[in-house]
Formats: sequence, C-alpha cells, structure tokens
Amino acid sequence: MRKMIVGGAQMGPIQKADTREAVVARMLDLMQQAHAQGVTMLVYPELALTTFFPRWYAEDRADMDHWFEKEMPGPQTQPLFDLGRELGIAFTFGYAELTDDGHHFNTSLVTDRQANIVGIYRKIHLPGHVEYDPERTHQHLEKRYFEPGDLGFPVWRNEGVVMGMAICNDRRWPEVYREMGLQGVELITIGYNTPSVNSQKGGEGLRQRLFHSDLSLQSGAYQNSTYVVGVAKAGDEDGHHLMGGSIIVDPDGEVIARAVTEGDELIVAECDFDRCAFGKATVFDFARHRRIEHYQRIGTQTGVKLEV
Amino acid sequence: MRKMIVGGAQMGPIQKADTREAVVARMLDLMQQAHAQGVTMLVYPELALTTFFPRWYAEDRADMDHWFEKEMPGPQTQPLFDLGRELGIAFTFGYAELTDDGHHFNTSLVTDRQANIVGIYRKIHLPGHVEYDPERTHQHLEKRYFEPGDLGFPVWRNEGVVMGMAICNDRRWPEVYREMGLQGVELITIGYNTPSVNSQKGGEGLRQRLFHSDLSLQSGAYQNSTYVVGVAKAGDEDGHHLMGGSIIVDPDGEVIARAVTEGDELIVAECDFDRCAFGKATVFDFARHRRIEHYQRIGTQTGVKLEV
Repeated sequence: MRKMIVGGAQMGPIQKADTREAVVARMLDLMQQAHAQGVTMLVYPELALTTFFPRWYAEDRADMDHWFEKEMPGPQTQPLFDLGRELGIAFTFGYAELTDDGHHFNTSLVTDRQANIVGIYRKIHLPGHVEYDPERTHQHLEKRYFEPGDLGFPVWRNEGVVMGMAICNDRRWPEVYREMGLQGVELITIGYNTPSVNSQKGGEGLRQRLFHSDLSLQSGAYQNSTYVVGVAKAGDEDGHHLMGGSIIVDPDGEVIARAVTEGDELIVAECDFDRCAFGKATVFDFARHRRIEHYQRIGTQTGVKLEV
Repeated sequence: MRKMIVGGAQMGPIQKADTREAVVARMLDLMQQAHAQGVTMLVYPELALTTFFPRWYAEDRADMDHWFEKEMPGPQTQPLFDLGRELGIAFTFGYAELTDDGHHFNTSLVTDRQANIVGIYRKIHLPGHVEYDPERTHQHLEKRYFEPGDLGFPVWRNEGVVMGMAICNDRRWPEVYREMGLQGVELITIGYNTPSVNSQKGGEGLRQRLFHSDLSLQSGAYQNSTYVVGVAKAGDEDGHHLMGGSIIVDPDGEVIARAVTEGDELIVAECDFDRCAFGKATVFDFARHRRIEHYQRIGTQTGVKLEV
C-alpha cells in the first residue's frame, strides 16, 4: 500500500480589493488545518492568490499585469513555502504567471514536502473569448489575457506518486486525462474558478453545472484509473458567483470527499495509490485494448469535419 | 427543431436453447410497442439474436460459428426488416458477423425507416481474453472469437440525423465518442451485454458496475454534445447474470429515460437534435478550443510509457 492523506483546500471568494497578504493568510490557515488532519499533499484552486480577474475587460491588456506573478515564490507567497516545508506538506496552487520574456499563462505549480517546486503546468484549454462580448451576461476573457499553455501535460514522480495537473476548463476534455494516463498517472490535481451561471445560457442552473464538473472529473478518473482532486474557488466575488463542489475522486470514479460550503473549506481523503493498479491492469490496460489506428482524427483534426 | 422519438429496446436474457425465431418474435413485439409510442428509431442490444456466447470456451473456434450470421438479412431476421418497413421504424441491432471470406466480427447494423441497411459498425474494443483463464469466475472470450473491427468509427446521415454506433466495451473509451464527435455526431447508439459481476474483482458490485456504465455514456454525451442511447441485454442467461441499466442520455449528459427491469423493456424519449448545437458552438466548439499539438500520445502510443 502506498497511502497518502490528500487535502483539497477550497477557497471562498477573493474580492478585487483583497490583498495577496490577506489571501495567503487564509491559505496558511487552511494548511494548518490540513496538517492537523495528517495531510501531506494539499491542493488549492486555480488563480488562488487573486480574484478571478478575467471577468473584467481591459482595453489595454497591460492594465491587468498587476494580477500576475513575476517571481515564484515572491515575497508575498514565500510564507506558503516556509510553512509547507515546516509542516512537511507538498502543495499545489494556481496563479497568473508573467514570464521574464513577457508571456502570460494561467499556471499551477506543485512542490514536494520540502517546498521545492517539482514542476509547473500551464493551462491549455482556455475558455471564453478575446474581445468584449456584449451578448454575454458576464465576460470570460481568458483567451484575451492568457496564451495557451506550451508545456503539454507532463507528469512527475512526487512523494512516491506519479502526478500531473490540469486547470479548470481542462477538466472537461478527456484528452487531458488520457495524455496523463498514457504516462501512468495516479493523481491529477485540478483547480478551478467556475461561474455558477453560464454566460450564454442563463437557464442552465447551478445543479447542472455542478453535475458537469462531477461528470468530467469522475469519468477522467475512472477511464484512466487515477485519483483526481478538483478544487474550487467559490462564492460571491464582487457580485459574481462562483460555484463550489470541490471533490476527491478515487480510481473507480467514486467521489470520496466533497465540499459542502462555498467558503474556505478543507476536504480530506486517504488515497492508496496501489488502488490505481487494478484498472490499469484489466479493463483499462491500454496496451492490450487501445486501437490507435482508429484514433487518428483526435490528434490530427482540431474542429468538426462534417462529411455526411 | 428536429425531433425524433427514439426507443431503446432492452432485452431480457436469451438462453442457449432459445431459437433465433423465438428471439426475433420478442424483438418484433418490442417494435410493435415502440410503434405504439411513436418511435421512429429503435435501438436493440449487442448480439441481440443469441445468448452472450463468448462466456463459453471452445477449443475449436469453428464450433462457435453457429452463433454467427452469414447473411443479413437472413431468413430468420427478415421479419425485423419487414416490420420495420411496414411501421416506418429505423432500427439498429447487434449480431455476430461471419463474412464471406471467413472473418468474425461483433457487429451492429442500422437501417433507415424503409429498412435499408444504412451502415454497419464492427466492435473495436474487444474486452476479455483469448485463452481459457482458470483464474476468472467466468470466461469472457471476445478476443478469442472476434477480430477487432476494421471500419473505424463512421457516422451516417440517417433520417436527418448524424449518427454513429459503438458496442458494449467501446462505451468506456472516450476516444470512441470523440472520433464521432469530430464528425459532428448527434446520436450514438450502443448495445451491450455486461456481466453483473467483474470476473476478476468479485467485490465490485452491481451498483458500481451500473455507475461505470452511466458515467461512460453520460460523459461521452456531454463532452461531444450528442444524444447517446445505451441498451442492455439483461438478466440471467443460463446462470450468468447480465446487468440492465439501459438509458437514453441527452446532449447535456442527463439521463432522460432509464429501464427499471432486467427483462424485455422499452424505454422512450423524444430527442430534439437541434439541442446538440449549443454545446458544439460554445464550451465544446472543438475548432476554437481543442489543442491537438498536445494530444499526440493519444493517436501514436498504445500503452502506458512510464518515464518518471
């Protein structure tokens, strides 16, 4: 058995006016709670340090650069690394990354239990749009402020587990889980900020949006025989409601922990990564069952081609 | 609106001793029931004409050829085509296909409302094993008796709808839905025979096996914004229990009809194929959101490569 107690640190809303210091203080508090429950791997949401700023339009993209991190850790995030090292908790969180050469990414990092950064992932499936859209009830300008990630879907062996990351809308794409599944992934962590209203379909409703999130996380876990942890930033950010619904999913696709609030809330589950082996050796033994000669559209054709 | 009333004709068990004539009579009865409810597209299970024979081992594979159809329609299946034409019901069912040149496939066909065969699909993801396995509680010898399908995942425009087919274990593979999704599919029909016990994991339980079926069908529907119809052969076949759980799923991944028995049972739902358009134009607008440069393992690497 390879057991690890994994925590999901759902975060309540972060207002525009909140400082990074105030946010990090909340994250430290969640880390202390996690330590008290024996957690050694803690997952925070996407864009954990700030409000979900892509909901606001700026004609000049540079006006948004203050939401981005130019160094990691920086002075405001260093306390997370210090406490992680002190408590022996590996952690992952999302942030807006501005690189030295001026590129903007929606990024997450993961550390080991000594607070060394083991790897970063840059979000590939950016939802939303580039220009201001007057038809929408609210804006979702990720395609304006970020470039698509350029690192693929890497996995790392971290604290004895093969793990990888995805961010928010990535979770709806089965290609994401499969790319990592083909590398033997056992734990996928996914932070998100998901508006509780579909900006183009008001009647969709919160129940159905939570269902779509669950469905994506659970099928990705089952079909690759991996644990999946989905962690929300939730609640009302300056009048814009984000859904919660953080869950930890086991390799059978079963939800084994679920957040019940829309605030800062820790969810915890003991994961035995040896449980990933059964599915990988039987129904999802890719080597025996996959037929790549019939999957050629997936990697060569981006959009729909209607030929009938 | 492009509305069609779709039926799933779940079938109860077929014993080894049952004749094809007796089975076809049951199928005709289900078709009459479907007609009474306005159904114009009716979906029968995998291997609808016979018992699920791959559970039995034959040292000489040719001893199993009597379970296969050498012509379609043949004298025993002609009544299905006759009644389908008379009632104006397009239908699809699965059968074991023995080709003129001696190939064996697990196949399904689909007709239009005039009982013309519009297309066939040959099952690609064959589960199970080739040789007798004394470790299993029961055998699952599909890899012994069938060759993997050689037709890919075609779609057809049939009765105004872009539709495709998959069979049983195919439904657990997101590649299947995506290959059809990339061709604009709006309706995927999937027949199955699924033992209610995992032959290698007795404790799995019927609830979890039904859950895995639902999860696969629902995520495939949602992530490709298509209707999916999953139809079981269910119940006790000569002491071997098959699970039921036939469902019709809408393009949001919601179950809109569900069988409650393990016998011959018709489920019905009105499908409006224009409802597929919203997802295809927004969150699953593949042309805008897919990033095939990061999907290269999926079509080029069959099994897991552990590199970390």
